[in-house]
Amino acid sequence: MGAVKSKRMPRAERERQMLDAAVEIIGRHGYTAASMDDIAELAGVSKPLVYLYLNSKDDLFTACIRREAAALTRAVRAAVRPDLPAERQLWDGVQAFFTYTAEHPDGWTVLHLQARTHGPKFAAEADAMRAEMAAFVTRLIASAARESHPACDLPAHEVAGLATALIGSAETLADWANTTDGVTAAHAATTLMNFAWSGLGNLMTGNHWTAPDPA
Amino acid sequence: MGAVKSKRMPRAERERQMLDAAVEIIGRHGYTAASMDDIAELAGVSKPLVYLYLNSKDDLFTACIRREAAALTRAVRAAVRPDLPAERQLWDGVQAFFTYTAEHPDGWTVLHLQARTHGPKFAAEADAMRAEMAAFVTRLIASAARESHPACDLPAHEVAGLATALIGSAETLADWANTTDGVTAAHAATTLMNFAWSGLGNLMTGNHWTAPDPA
Repeated sequence: MGAVKSKRMPRAERERQMLDAAVEIIGRHGYTAASMDDIAELAGVSKPLVYLYLNSKDDLFTACIRREAAALTRAVRAAVRPDLPAERQLWDGVQAFFTYTAEHPDGWTVLHLQARTHGPKFAAEADAMRAEMAAFVTRLIASAARESHPACDLPAHEVAGLATALIGSAETLADWANTTDGVTAAHAATTLMNFAWSGLGNLMTGNHWTAPDPA
Repeated sequence: MGAVKSKRMPRAERERQMLDAAVEIIGRHGYTAASMDDIAELAGVSKPLVYLYLNSKDDLFTACIRREAAALTRAVRAAVRPDLPAERQLWDGVQAFFTYTAEHPDGWTVLHLQARTHGPKFAAEADAMRAEMAAFVTRLIASAARESHPACDLPAHEVAGLATALIGSAETLADWANTTDGVTAAHAATTLMNFAWSGLGNLMTGNHWTAPDPA
């Protein structure tokens, strides 16, 4: 990273380097195969210092998951302007989601795949982020329904189901985009809107989703 | 199960009882917490017999994942008649999927959550089933597009993305249905068709998906 690694580097900065290294190693080789030696070497610190700061491989993994979850959630929230129409908010949020997961493939692998394949403790960390995303999408769909059709709100349990479906499709599309040559973030975002907003029924008759005008 | 457990019970039948017990125990308590003693007791056999037949806890788990994957795939395929219109095939397949996962909640938990949270070896077993489902849905969407709009096939990579999105939303909706009071298989199936076929854009203006006429 080009930073000078003096003994006077602040703790937060050293920790960030350790987490950067851990996300890269765990994302590429998997949690089981990831070695603390490799993580320390990539971070440019000694292995005892990693243990001093992060305590154990489990705690390091947990810290990685939490950091990646917070960063992804922040990226999506930052892209969404609550004063715009709901469809526009969704499109902006979806683009931010796929842009972030494409630019941070190791972070996304840690968050979605590694966190879910190494025991319930880590899976619970990833589930907490998913619950926050679900609450966000639920509010968005409910407000979209109110905007379009004030007399007939979608029932709350129906909205919760639609939000669940949207999140599930976004997650699997992010995996697919990151593992399929030629699939960009923009492509994945458009596929999701075609699927989720226009629906297969419209696509079958050639009616693709078109992005709303920029704000 | 009421079956008489004589020493002359065929091996296949005894194995089936062991797998039934293992799916129930692993589905309810998780793979890590599941004990071979409890599995043997529930199956009404001795623990050494479980090891003799299934070799190890890992192999028993792998056998559970494979059996549940095959059963779910079979249930979906059996519900779909290739001579019917594609939308009807999709609706029949979706109903069969949610009916199966609702009637076999332990099997679905083993297949989708447990298989994905205990290491890459088991996750690969679940991924093999997902790949088969994806190929099936991909063919269905491609043939639906040809039926509706013969002059303008959806490009193959677009169809693959839509199939990926559909499978991701179906999986998360099955988890949601099985863990949310009052959400039936029929409700989850309708939510998926509303989402995937009609799309949020139509739902917002009150245009819900309606089931095609039965064959």
